[in-house]
Amino acid sequence: MAEHKPYLTGRTYIFKIGRGKDLLEALTDFCHDNQIKCGIVNGIGTLENATLGYFDQDKKKYEKHIVNKPTEIVNLVGNISIMDNRSNVHAHVTLSDEKGAALGGQLFPGSKVFVAEIFVQELVGEPKVRKQDKTTKLNLWI
Amino acid sequence: MAEHKPYLTGRTYIFKIGRGKDLLEALTDFCHDNQIKCGIVNGIGTLENATLGYFDQDKKKYEKHIVNKPTEIVNLVGNISIMDNRSNVHAHVTLSDEKGAALGGQLFPGSKVFVAEIFVQELVGEPKVRKQDKTTKLNLWI
Amino acid sequence: MAEHKPYLTGRTYIFKIGRGKDLLEALTDFCHDNQIKCGIVNGIGTLENATLGYFDQDKKKYEKHIVNKPTEIVNLVGNISIMDNRSNVHAHVTLSDEKGAALGGQLFPGSKVFVAEIFVQELVGEPKVRKQDKTTKLNLWI
Repeated sequence: MAEHKPYLTGRTYIFKIGRGKDLLEALTDFCHDNQIKCGIVNGIGTLENATLGYFDQDKKKYEKHIVNKPTEIVNLVGNISIMDNRSNVHAHVTLSDEKGAALGGQLFPGSKVFVAEIFVQELVGEPKVRKQDKTTKLNLWI
Repeated sequence: MAEHKPYLTGRTYIFKIGRGKDLLEALTDFCHDNQIKCGIVNGIGTLENATLGYFDQDKKKYEKHIVNKPTEIVNLVGNISIMDNRSNVHAHVTLSDEKGAALGGQLFPGSKVFVAEIFVQELVGEPKVRKQDKTTKLNLWI
Repeated sequence: MAEHKPYLTGRTYIFKIGRGKDLLEALTDFCHDNQIKCGIVNGIGTLENATLGYFDQDKKKYEKHIVNKPTEIVNLVGNISIMDNRSNVHAHVTLSDEKGAALGGQLFPGSKVFVAEIFVQELVGEPKVRKQDKTTKLNLWI
Protein backbone atom coordinates (compact mmCIF):
# COMPACT_ATOMS: atom_id res chain seq x y z
CA MET A 1 0.00 0.00 0.00
CA ALA A 2 1.24 3.53 -0.82
CA GLU A 3 2.66 5.73 1.92
CA HIS A 4 0.05 7.71 3.80
CA LYS A 5 0.61 11.08 5.42
CA PRO A 6 -1.29 11.66 8.65
CA TYR A 7 -3.73 14.54 9.02
CA LEU A 8 -4.15 16.84 12.00
CA THR A 9 -7.51 17.18 13.67
CA GLY A 10 -8.96 20.63 13.08
CA ARG A 11 -12.21 22.20 14.19
CA THR A 12 -14.88 20.00 15.77
CA TYR A 13 -18.61 20.68 15.62
CA ILE A 14 -21.72 19.17 17.08
CA PHE A 15 -25.03 20.68 16.01
CA LYS A 16 -28.68 20.11 15.16
CA ILE A 17 -30.32 20.31 11.74
CA GLY A 18 -33.93 21.35 12.05
CA ARG A 19 -37.18 20.13 10.57
CA GLY A 20 -37.85 20.55 6.88
CA LYS A 21 -34.24 20.88 5.71
CA ASP A 22 -32.80 18.66 3.01
CA LEU A 23 -30.19 16.63 4.91
CA LEU A 24 -27.46 16.46 2.25
CA GLU A 25 -27.89 20.11 1.29
CA ALA A 26 -27.75 21.20 4.93
CA LEU A 27 -24.54 19.22 5.50
CA THR A 28 -22.96 20.58 2.33
CA ASP A 29 -23.95 24.16 3.16
CA PHE A 30 -22.52 23.77 6.67
CA CYS A 31 -19.17 22.64 5.24
CA HIS A 32 -19.14 25.35 2.61
CA ASP A 33 -20.11 28.12 5.05
CA ASN A 34 -17.40 27.05 7.50
CA GLN A 35 -14.89 26.32 4.73
CA ILE A 36 -14.37 22.72 5.79
CA LYS A 37 -12.51 21.05 2.94
CA CYS A 38 -11.51 17.78 4.57
CA GLY A 39 -13.06 15.80 7.40
CA ILE A 40 -15.55 13.26 8.56
CA VAL A 41 -19.21 13.46 9.51
CA ASN A 42 -21.42 11.28 11.72
CA GLY A 43 -24.97 11.59 12.87
CA ILE A 44 -28.29 10.22 14.02
CA GLY A 45 -31.83 11.52 13.78
CA THR A 46 -35.23 11.09 12.22
CA LEU A 47 -36.31 11.73 8.60
CA GLU A 48 -39.70 12.55 7.09
CA ASN A 49 -38.69 10.82 3.83
CA ALA A 50 -35.49 9.73 2.11
CA THR A 51 -33.77 9.10 -1.19
CA LEU A 52 -31.09 6.41 -1.15
CA GLY A 53 -28.62 5.44 -3.86
CA TYR A 54 -27.28 2.00 -4.76
CA PHE A 55 -24.44 1.87 -7.25
CA ASP A 56 -25.03 -0.70 -9.98
CA GLN A 57 -21.48 -1.90 -10.75
CA ASP A 58 -22.48 -3.37 -14.13
CA LYS A 59 -24.54 -0.46 -15.44
CA LYS A 60 -22.12 1.99 -13.76
CA LYS A 61 -24.86 4.21 -12.46
CA TYR A 62 -26.88 4.77 -9.30
CA GLU A 63 -30.29 3.26 -8.76
CA LYS A 64 -32.46 5.41 -6.51
CA HIS A 65 -34.72 4.17 -3.74
CA ILE A 66 -37.39 6.58 -2.62
CA VAL A 67 -38.48 6.00 0.98
CA ASN A 68 -41.90 7.61 1.28
CA LYS A 69 -42.34 7.30 5.00
CA PRO A 70 -40.72 8.48 8.23
CA THR A 71 -37.63 6.58 9.36
CA GLU A 72 -35.00 6.78 12.07
CA ILE A 73 -31.48 7.64 10.90
CA VAL A 74 -29.79 4.87 12.85
CA ASN A 75 -26.51 5.96 11.39
CA LEU A 76 -25.10 8.54 9.03
CA VAL A 77 -21.40 8.25 8.25
CA GLY A 78 -19.45 10.12 5.64
CA ASN A 79 -16.54 12.26 4.66
CA ILE A 80 -15.82 15.74 3.36
CA SER A 81 -13.54 16.44 0.43
CA ILE A 82 -13.33 18.75 -2.57
CA MET A 83 -15.22 18.29 -5.82
CA ASP A 84 -15.44 20.98 -8.53
CA ASN A 85 -13.64 23.39 -6.15
CA ARG A 86 -16.38 23.10 -3.53
CA SER A 87 -16.81 21.20 -0.24
CA ASN A 88 -18.42 17.86 -1.05
CA VAL A 89 -20.12 15.57 1.45
CA HIS A 90 -20.19 11.86 0.61
CA ALA A 91 -22.41 10.16 3.16
CA HIS A 92 -24.13 6.81 3.57
CA VAL A 93 -27.10 6.25 5.85
CA THR A 94 -28.75 3.35 7.59
CA LEU A 95 -32.44 3.95 8.30
CA SER A 96 -34.98 1.94 10.29
CA ASP A 97 -38.72 1.85 9.72
CA GLU A 98 -41.81 1.42 11.91
CA LYS A 99 -41.19 -2.33 12.14
CA GLY A 100 -37.55 -1.90 13.11
CA ALA A 101 -36.33 -3.16 9.73
CA ALA A 102 -33.17 -1.50 8.44
CA LEU A 103 -32.53 -0.10 5.00
CA GLY A 104 -29.59 1.82 3.64
CA GLY A 105 -27.63 3.40 0.84
CA GLN A 106 -25.89 6.56 -0.26
CA LEU A 107 -27.57 9.74 1.00
CA PHE A 108 -29.06 11.61 -1.97
CA PRO A 109 -30.77 14.99 -2.15
CA GLY A 110 -34.45 14.45 -1.38
CA SER A 111 -34.08 13.34 2.23
CA LYS A 112 -36.14 15.63 4.47
CA VAL A 113 -35.10 16.12 8.08
CA PHE A 114 -37.45 15.77 11.04
CA VAL A 115 -34.46 16.29 13.31
CA ALA A 116 -30.77 15.41 12.93
CA GLU A 117 -27.84 15.58 15.37
CA ILE A 118 -24.55 15.88 13.56
CA PHE A 119 -20.86 15.60 14.45
CA VAL A 120 -18.22 17.03 12.12
CA GLN A 121 -14.48 16.60 12.60
CA GLU A 122 -12.36 18.73 10.31
CA LEU A 123 -9.04 17.24 9.21
CA VAL A 124 -6.12 19.51 8.44
CA GLY A 125 -3.74 18.42 5.70
CA GLU A 126 -3.94 18.03 1.94
CA PRO A 127 -7.68 17.81 1.17
CA LYS A 128 -8.81 14.84 -0.89
CA VAL A 129 -10.09 15.80 -4.34
CA ARG A 130 -12.97 13.87 -5.91
CA LYS A 131 -13.21 13.42 -9.67
CA GLN A 132 -15.09 11.11 -11.98
CA ASP A 133 -13.14 7.91 -12.53
CA LYS A 134 -13.27 6.78 -16.18
CA THR A 135 -13.37 3.05 -15.43
CA THR A 136 -16.03 2.91 -12.72
CA LYS A 137 -17.85 6.21 -13.49
CA LEU A 138 -17.79 6.88 -9.71
CA ASN A 139 -16.53 10.17 -8.28
CA LEU A 140 -13.39 8.92 -6.53
CA TRP A 141 -10.49 10.50 -4.66
CA ILE A 142 -7.70 10.94 -7.18
CA MET B 1 -27.66 28.34 8.98
CA ALA B 2 -26.77 29.94 12.33
CA GLU B 3 -23.15 30.49 13.28
CA HIS B 4 -21.55 27.50 14.94
CA LYS B 5 -18.75 27.63 17.47
CA PRO B 6 -16.20 24.82 17.25
CA TYR B 7 -15.55 22.51 20.19
CA LEU B 8 -12.20 21.23 21.42
CA THR B 9 -11.57 17.52 21.70
CA GLY B 10 -11.27 16.49 25.34
CA ARG B 11 -10.67 13.11 26.93
CA THR B 12 -10.81 10.00 24.76
CA TYR B 13 -11.77 6.55 26.01
CA ILE B 14 -11.91 3.06 24.60
CA PHE B 15 -13.28 0.35 26.86
CA LYS B 16 -15.27 -2.85 27.14
CA ILE B 17 -18.72 -3.29 28.71
CA GLY B 18 -19.10 -6.78 30.11
CA ARG B 19 -21.79 -9.43 29.96
CA GLY B 20 -25.14 -8.84 31.64
CA LYS B 21 -25.01 -5.03 31.80
CA ASP B 22 -27.78 -2.89 30.40
CA LEU B 23 -26.07 -1.13 27.49
CA LEU B 24 -27.71 2.31 27.78
CA GLU B 25 -27.38 2.37 31.56
CA ALA B 26 -23.72 1.37 31.38
CA LEU B 27 -22.99 4.14 28.86
CA THR B 28 -24.87 6.71 30.92
CA ASP B 29 -23.13 5.65 34.13
CA PHE B 30 -19.76 5.87 32.41
CA CYS B 31 -20.45 9.45 31.31
CA HIS B 32 -21.82 10.42 34.70
CA ASP B 33 -18.92 8.84 36.63
CA ASN B 34 -16.36 10.57 34.42
CA GLN B 35 -18.35 13.81 34.26
CA ILE B 36 -18.56 13.80 30.48
CA LYS B 37 -21.14 16.43 29.56
CA CYS B 38 -20.58 16.71 25.83
CA GLY B 39 -19.23 14.26 23.30
CA ILE B 40 -19.82 11.41 20.93
CA VAL B 41 -19.96 7.66 21.36
CA ASN B 42 -19.42 4.76 18.94
CA GLY B 43 -19.30 1.05 19.39
CA ILE B 44 -19.71 -2.51 18.23
CA GLY B 45 -20.48 -5.74 20.06
CA THR B 46 -23.01 -8.47 20.70
CA LEU B 47 -26.30 -8.29 22.63
CA GLU B 48 -28.33 -10.97 24.39
CA ASN B 49 -31.55 -9.04 23.69
CA ALA B 50 -32.54 -5.52 22.76
CA THR B 51 -35.22 -2.85 23.00
CA LEU B 52 -35.37 -0.43 20.07
CA GLY B 53 -37.41 2.73 19.68
CA TYR B 54 -39.06 4.16 16.56
CA PHE B 55 -40.51 7.64 16.82
CA ASP B 56 -44.03 7.87 15.41
CA GLN B 57 -44.11 11.43 14.02
CA ASP B 58 -47.93 11.52 13.88
CA LYS B 59 -48.64 10.10 17.34
CA LYS B 60 -45.58 11.96 18.70
CA LYS B 61 -44.40 9.03 20.76
CA TYR B 62 -41.99 6.12 20.56
CA GLU B 63 -43.03 2.64 19.47
CA LYS B 64 -40.89 -0.04 21.08
CA HIS B 65 -39.51 -3.12 19.35
CA ILE B 66 -38.43 -5.92 21.64
CA VAL B 67 -35.75 -8.12 20.09
CA ASN B 68 -35.88 -11.38 22.02
CA LYS B 69 -32.80 -13.01 20.58
CA PRO B 70 -29.05 -12.47 20.37
CA THR B 71 -27.84 -9.99 17.77
CA GLU B 72 -24.62 -8.35 16.68
CA ILE B 73 -24.33 -4.62 17.33
CA VAL B 74 -23.10 -3.77 13.86
CA ASN B 75 -23.07 -0.16 14.86
CA LEU B 76 -23.83 2.04 17.82
CA VAL B 77 -23.58 5.79 17.25
CA GLY B 78 -24.67 8.55 19.55
CA ASN B 79 -23.93 11.70 21.43
CA ILE B 80 -23.63 12.93 24.98
CA SER B 81 -25.33 16.07 26.25
CA ILE B 82 -27.11 17.33 29.35
CA MET B 83 -30.71 16.57 30.27
CA ASP B 84 -32.21 17.35 33.68
CA ASN B 85 -28.73 18.39 34.89
CA ARG B 86 -27.26 14.94 34.17
CA SER B 87 -25.17 13.39 31.42
CA ASN B 88 -27.55 11.99 28.81
CA VAL B 89 -26.64 9.48 26.11
CA HIS B 90 -28.73 9.53 22.93
CA ALA B 91 -27.71 6.53 20.85
CA HIS B 92 -29.03 4.65 17.85
CA VAL B 93 -28.05 1.07 17.03
CA THR B 94 -28.02 -1.16 14.01
CA LEU B 95 -28.25 -4.85 14.88
CA SER B 96 -27.92 -7.98 12.75
CA ASP B 97 -29.52 -11.32 13.41
CA GLU B 98 -28.63 -14.97 12.76
CA LYS B 99 -29.58 -14.61 9.08
CA GLY B 100 -27.51 -11.46 8.63
CA ALA B 101 -30.62 -9.26 8.37
CA ALA B 102 -30.26 -5.80 9.87
CA LEU B 103 -32.65 -4.03 12.20
CA GLY B 104 -32.32 -0.74 14.00
CA GLY B 105 -33.69 2.07 16.09
CA GLN B 106 -33.03 4.21 19.13
CA LEU B 107 -31.27 2.34 21.93
CA PHE B 108 -33.66 1.96 24.86
CA PRO B 109 -33.09 0.54 28.34
CA GLY B 110 -33.67 -3.20 28.15
CA SER B 111 -30.74 -4.07 25.88
CA LYS B 112 -28.53 -6.64 27.59
CA VAL B 113 -24.85 -6.80 26.71
CA PHE B 114 -23.02 -9.99 25.78
CA VAL B 115 -19.94 -7.88 25.07
CA ALA B 116 -19.53 -4.30 23.81
CA GLU B 117 -16.48 -2.32 22.73
CA ILE B 118 -17.03 1.40 23.11
CA PHE B 119 -15.28 4.59 22.00
CA VAL B 120 -16.08 7.89 23.70
CA GLN B 121 -14.74 11.27 22.57
CA GLU B 122 -15.38 14.09 24.99
CA LEU B 123 -15.94 17.52 23.46
CA VAL B 124 -14.97 20.64 25.36
CA GLY B 125 -17.13 23.72 24.91
CA GLU B 126 -20.65 24.73 25.79
CA PRO B 127 -22.49 21.42 26.39
CA LYS B 128 -25.71 20.90 24.47
CA VAL B 129 -28.80 20.84 26.67
CA ARG B 130 -31.71 18.56 25.84
CA LYS B 131 -35.29 19.52 26.67
CA GLN B 132 -38.71 18.40 25.55
CA ASP B 133 -39.78 20.28 22.45
CA LYS B 134 -43.44 21.30 22.60
CA THR B 135 -44.17 20.81 18.90
CA THR B 136 -42.58 17.41 18.30
CA LYS B 137 -42.58 16.07 21.89
CA LEU B 138 -38.99 14.94 21.29
CA ASN B 139 -36.17 15.80 23.69
CA LEU B 140 -34.16 18.15 21.48
CA TRP B 141 -31.10 20.35 21.89
CA ILE B 142 -32.36 23.83 22.70
CA MET C 1 -17.48 0.32 36.68
CA ALA C 2 -13.66 0.17 36.92
CA GLU C 3 -11.64 3.34 36.58
CA HIS C 4 -10.78 4.25 33.02
CA LYS C 5 -7.67 6.09 31.90
CA PRO C 6 -8.15 8.46 28.98
CA TYR C 7 -6.19 8.04 25.76
CA LEU C 8 -4.59 10.75 23.66
CA THR C 9 -5.48 11.11 20.01
CA GLY C 10 -2.55 10.19 17.80
CA ARG C 11 -2.15 10.11 14.05
CA THR C 12 -5.24 10.56 11.87
CA TYR C 13 -5.64 9.10 8.39
CA ILE C 14 -8.19 9.29 5.63
CA PHE C 15 -7.55 7.17 2.54
CA LYS C 16 -9.01 5.05 -0.23
CA ILE C 17 -8.78 1.28 -0.61
CA GLY C 18 -8.86 0.33 -4.27
CA ARG C 19 -10.74 -2.26 -6.28
CA GLY C 20 -9.98 -5.93 -5.79
CA LYS C 21 -8.45 -5.72 -2.30
CA ASP C 22 -9.72 -7.82 0.57
CA LEU C 23 -11.18 -5.19 2.92
CA LEU C 24 -10.16 -6.70 6.27
CA GLU C 25 -6.67 -7.61 5.03
CA ALA C 26 -6.16 -4.12 3.62
CA LEU C 27 -7.20 -2.52 6.91
CA THR C 28 -4.98 -4.86 8.92
CA ASP C 29 -2.00 -4.29 6.61
CA PHE C 30 -2.50 -0.53 6.87
CA CYS C 31 -2.39 -0.70 10.67
CA HIS C 32 0.58 -3.04 10.68
CA ASP C 33 2.56 -0.99 8.13
CA ASN C 34 1.94 2.22 10.08
CA GLN C 35 2.40 0.52 13.45
CA ILE C 36 -1.02 1.53 14.72
CA LYS C 37 -1.64 -0.52 17.86
CA CYS C 38 -4.69 1.21 19.25
CA GLY C 39 -7.43 3.21 17.59
CA ILE C 40 -10.74 3.31 15.80
CA VAL C 41 -11.73 2.91 12.19
CA ASN C 42 -14.76 4.08 10.20
CA GLY C 43 -15.65 3.89 6.56
CA ILE C 44 -18.08 3.74 3.68
CA GLY C 45 -17.83 2.29 0.18
CA THR C 46 -18.97 -0.41 -2.19
CA LEU C 47 -18.12 -4.13 -2.15
CA GLU C 48 -18.10 -6.73 -4.92
CA ASN C 49 -18.96 -9.46 -2.40
CA ALA C 50 -18.79 -9.97 1.35
CA THR C 51 -18.41 -12.47 4.16
CA LEU C 52 -20.19 -11.58 7.40
CA GLY C 53 -20.00 -13.25 10.79
CA TYR C 54 -22.73 -13.76 13.38
CA PHE C 55 -21.67 -15.07 16.78
CA ASP C 56 -23.85 -17.94 17.97
CA GLN C 57 -23.85 -17.43 21.75
CA ASP C 58 -25.02 -21.00 22.45
CA LYS C 59 -22.66 -22.83 20.10
CA LYS C 60 -19.91 -20.31 20.93
CA LYS C 61 -18.79 -19.97 17.36
CA TYR C 62 -19.31 -17.73 14.34
CA GLU C 63 -21.80 -18.51 11.61
CA LYS C 64 -20.73 -17.10 8.26
CA HIS C 65 -22.98 -15.38 5.74
CA ILE C 66 -21.63 -15.19 2.23
CA VAL C 67 -23.03 -12.26 0.27
CA ASN C 68 -22.52 -13.13 -3.38
CA LYS C 69 -23.51 -9.81 -4.89
CA PRO C 70 -22.42 -6.19 -4.91
CA THR C 71 -23.50 -4.11 -1.92
CA GLU C 72 -22.96 -0.64 -0.52
CA ILE C 73 -20.95 -0.42 2.71
CA VAL C 74 -23.39 1.90 4.45
CA ASN C 75 -21.21 1.74 7.49
CA LEU C 76 -17.99 0.15 8.70
CA VAL C 77 -17.09 0.73 12.33
CA GLY C 78 -14.38 -0.93 14.32
CA ASN C 79 -11.36 -0.72 16.53
CA ILE C 80 -7.67 -1.53 16.47
CA SER C 81 -5.92 -3.42 19.25
CA ILE C 82 -3.21 -6.06 19.67
CA MET C 83 -3.70 -9.79 19.19
CA ASP C 84 -0.81 -12.27 19.02
CA ASN C 85 1.62 -9.34 19.07
CA ARG C 86 0.18 -7.85 15.87
CA SER C 87 -2.23 -5.04 15.03
CA ASN C 88 -5.73 -6.50 14.94
CA VAL C 89 -8.77 -4.87 13.33
CA HIS C 90 -12.18 -5.82 14.74
CA ALA C 91 -14.81 -4.30 12.48
CA HIS C 92 -18.53 -4.66 11.91
CA VAL C 93 -20.26 -3.63 8.69
CA THR C 94 -23.75 -2.71 7.59
CA LEU C 95 -24.34 -3.36 3.89
CA SER C 96 -27.27 -2.48 1.63
CA ASP C 97 -28.32 -4.33 -1.48
CA GLU C 98 -29.96 -3.42 -4.81
CA LYS C 99 -33.35 -3.14 -3.11
CA GLY C 100 -32.05 -0.91 -0.34
CA ALA C 101 -32.39 -3.68 2.26
CA ALA C 102 -29.71 -3.68 4.94
CA LEU C 103 -27.69 -6.62 6.20
CA GLY C 104 -24.82 -6.76 8.63
CA GLY C 105 -22.34 -8.61 10.78
CA GLN C 106 -18.68 -8.88 11.68
CA LEU C 107 -16.37 -8.19 8.75
CA PHE C 108 -14.57 -11.41 7.80
CA PRO C 109 -11.84 -12.04 5.25
CA GLY C 110 -13.50 -12.68 1.91
CA SER C 111 -15.00 -9.21 1.40
CA LYS C 112 -13.78 -7.77 -1.89
CA VAL C 113 -13.55 -4.01 -2.31
CA PHE C 114 -15.01 -2.11 -5.26
CA VAL C 115 -14.00 1.11 -3.53
CA ALA C 116 -13.70 2.04 0.16
CA GLU C 117 -13.09 5.37 1.91
CA ILE C 118 -11.58 4.86 5.33
CA PHE C 119 -10.91 7.01 8.41
CA VAL C 120 -8.45 5.83 11.06
CA GLN C 121 -7.87 7.60 14.37
CA GLU C 122 -4.88 6.31 16.32
CA LEU C 123 -5.19 6.42 20.10
CA VAL C 124 -2.08 6.83 22.23
CA GLY C 125 -2.02 5.06 25.59
CA GLU C 126 -1.87 1.49 26.75
CA PRO C 127 -3.05 -0.57 23.75
CA LYS C 128 -5.87 -3.02 24.39
CA VAL C 129 -4.80 -6.67 24.07
CA ARG C 130 -7.21 -9.22 22.65
CA LYS C 131 -7.15 -12.84 23.82
CA GLN C 132 -9.53 -15.77 23.65
CA ASP C 133 -11.93 -15.71 26.60
CA LYS C 134 -12.48 -19.18 28.05
CA THR C 135 -16.16 -18.67 28.90
CA THR C 136 -17.46 -17.13 25.69
CA LYS C 137 -14.72 -18.33 23.27
CA LEU C 138 -14.64 -14.79 21.87
CA ASN C 139 -11.38 -12.86 21.47
CA LEU C 140 -11.94 -10.15 24.06
CA TRP C 141 -9.90 -7.30 25.52
CA ILE C 142 -8.30 -8.63 28.68
